[in-house]
Amino acid sequence: MTDTRLTPLAAALPSTIPFVAPETMEAGRGAPFDARLGANELSFGPSPKATAAMQTALNGIWKYGIPENEPLRSALAARINVAPEAITIGEGIDGLLGILVRLYVGAGDAVVTSDGSYPTFNYHVAGVGGVLHKVPYKGDFEDPEALIAKATEVGAKLVYLSNPNNPMGTVHSADVVQAMIDAVPDGCLMVLDEAYTEFAADSTAPKIDTTNTNVIRFRTFSKAYGLAGARIGYGISDPEIISGFDKIRNHFGVNRIAQAGALAALHDSAYLSVTLEKVDQGRARIAQIARDNSLTPLASSANFVTIDCGRDGDFARALVAALNTRGVFVRMPGAAPMDRCIRVSVGLPAELDILAERLPLALGDIS
Amino acid sequence: MTDTRLTPLAAALPSTIPFVAPETMEAGRGAPFDARLGANELSFGPSPKATAAMQTALNGIWKYGIPENEPLRSALAARINVAPEAITIGEGIDGLLGILVRLYVGAGDAVVTSDGSYPTFNYHVAGVGGVLHKVPYKGDFEDPEALIAKATEVGAKLVYLSNPNNPMGTVHSADVVQAMIDAVPDGCLMVLDEAYTEFAADSTAPKIDTTNTNVIRFRTFSKAYGLAGARIGYGISDPEIISGFDKIRNHFGVNRIAQAGALAALHDSAYLSVTLEKVDQGRARIAQIARDNSLTPLASSANFVTIDCGRDGDFARALVAALNTRGVFVRMPGAAPMDRCIRVSVGLPAELDILAERLPLALGDIS
Repeated sequence: MTDTRLTPLAAALPSTIPFVAPETMEAGRGAPFDARLGANELSFGPSPKATAAMQTALNGIWKYGIPENEPLRSALAARINVAPEAITIGEGIDGLLGILVRLYVGAGDAVVTSDGSYPTFNYHVAGVGGVLHKVPYKGDFEDPEALIAKATEVGAKLVYLSNPNNPMGTVHSADVVQAMIDAVPDGCLMVLDEAYTEFAADSTAPKIDTTNTNVIRFRTFSKAYGLAGARIGYGISDPEIISGFDKIRNHFGVNRIAQAGALAALHDSAYLSVTLEKVDQGRARIAQIARDNSLTPLASSANFVTIDCGRDGDFARALVAALNTRGVFVRMPGAAPMDRCIRVSVGLPAELDILAERLPLALGDIS
Repeated sequence: MTDTRLTPLAAALPSTIPFVAPETMEAGRGAPFDARLGANELSFGPSPKATAAMQTALNGIWKYGIPENEPLRSALAARINVAPEAITIGEGIDGLLGILVRLYVGAGDAVVTSDGSYPTFNYHVAGVGGVLHKVPYKGDFEDPEALIAKATEVGAKLVYLSNPNNPMGTVHSADVVQAMIDAVPDGCLMVLDEAYTEFAADSTAPKIDTTNTNVIRFRTFSKAYGLAGARIGYGISDPEIISGFDKIRNHFGVNRIAQAGALAALHDSAYLSVTLEKVDQGRARIAQIARDNSLTPLASSANFVTIDCGRDGDFARALVAALNTRGVFVRMPGAAPMDRCIRVSVGLPAELDILAERLPLALGDIS
């Protein structure tokens, strides 16, 4: 029985767990996965310097974190050459998206995204009563022109683009993204999710311009920096837009160890370079494994490779299930026609060996 | 210039940092504090077993945390003898309060609290457009009868009580709190903030009854367990009420290391006993220091002692500033007449030595 004291909006929302965690699936299947390739984590782990900084920070875990997230905020600002006031730090991009929608989207307000793009954004929009309008992907890419056209048509408060895109791994050039930023209609703010940007060519990220009030960009330490469990990401925009986060955010919400780990990770550029090299090798390996099984890998600018299985969603879902049963944790896009694909994160070389061994077995299971 | 795209509610809210962090104050004064006695942290730190568990968990920081917060949730449930579904875990009580108000408080809805009680609750209520109604303390205690009377009068959606109370350290007996729970008017949910409950006598916490839909209780690992920087707390209520949190919470919001540390801390009952003993000694020491300076310590059921300075708010504010200048970080209640007091957290014995040395000097500074 629903609690009648809930707000009408809350009463109408479902209680969900948006993603089933691999640990939960492991409990269900009664055994751990042999290859954890489903959550786009960085299996290589963070910089040893970040780990060392977090070990040291454990000594101060009894202290609250710093609400301004300093000195990390200033370090990030220096790195990307903006004012600290142009950056807000929060509990991962997920947490920041949750705040953003509360700031900009009232009940009944329109929001535009791509059908099959990041579901947690949609979850947060629903959580404030926003009305989602979705446009189709165009050839496995998000479609900036269609997104802008729809945002203009419905008077959207927010329009979302991930670049590189999850779950497809595709990316637009900086020129295309900048053209989208420039075309954002009045009254609308573009949400540019750059969670995977470090894995992509530099030429895919538009120049950061925090005088441009058309866009807010989000980046994270969860992916290229290997700190998914730390829960720390950041937003970059015009300082006036960023100041809005201080209206409602949980100021002491970021874990103190995460603050220390992110700072050290940011400073270890050499480790990041090695990571990117390993991810590049891993992508090539996954692509080869796909081809060896007569499947078609999509070119990827992220730390995963999306593989076109050449059949329908039922086939891909069966393949994901068969892989999971055989100890290989992978996920897949949720919406057609991208659900003809499965999505494989770059894991350790030994995990990709397991993928190479079991993908043909899993394909055999469902043939 | 305010962003005109903000929701009307967001546009009307101020951008704030509710508490100035001690690190920020240290940056301002150009020197670290010699005694950190202002944020009700546990200066003794967490259980060494919790620290060891967090060190081990660092190896998995590249993985996302578990959205169901297992196995911690089940361990908590077993400890307090309720179903796991009667517990929700989040980014500290602050984070959980932020979700709670979104579930229950719409724009214009009434919420009742005490004038001078926890400001972060008020901040979250303002963040959803709730209308706060405040009743006065009664002799340095929150006043359950007045809170219920006001909640009934204004048709409140939520009524807040902290027990033990911050910032005064006072506590009501379980009977008094249970009577308040039983008197919650229809349409209202009581928010029982038990952040400091471990420091109080067992006789101050009503029996936990998760069939009672009048109340939701919040507890934390930030205080007695020494994990303030980890950001992890929990709510206990009827499973239907708890399921509401899954409508809008940031499911992957809790840091993975925090999950591991909290679990190990929970299991180290021996360390908790030692902590409580040390806090008891610290309270006695602070009280003695107060009396040595002709000030009046209030009896405390928390990990701090609130000291009645016997003068007005201006005097107490000057004393807090003088102590801060002399390297002793303390805070004070914000509302009259409690602002005749300063609030001193139980620190390390060496820090209380510094307090003993500098309190008379600070009093001299302002006399």
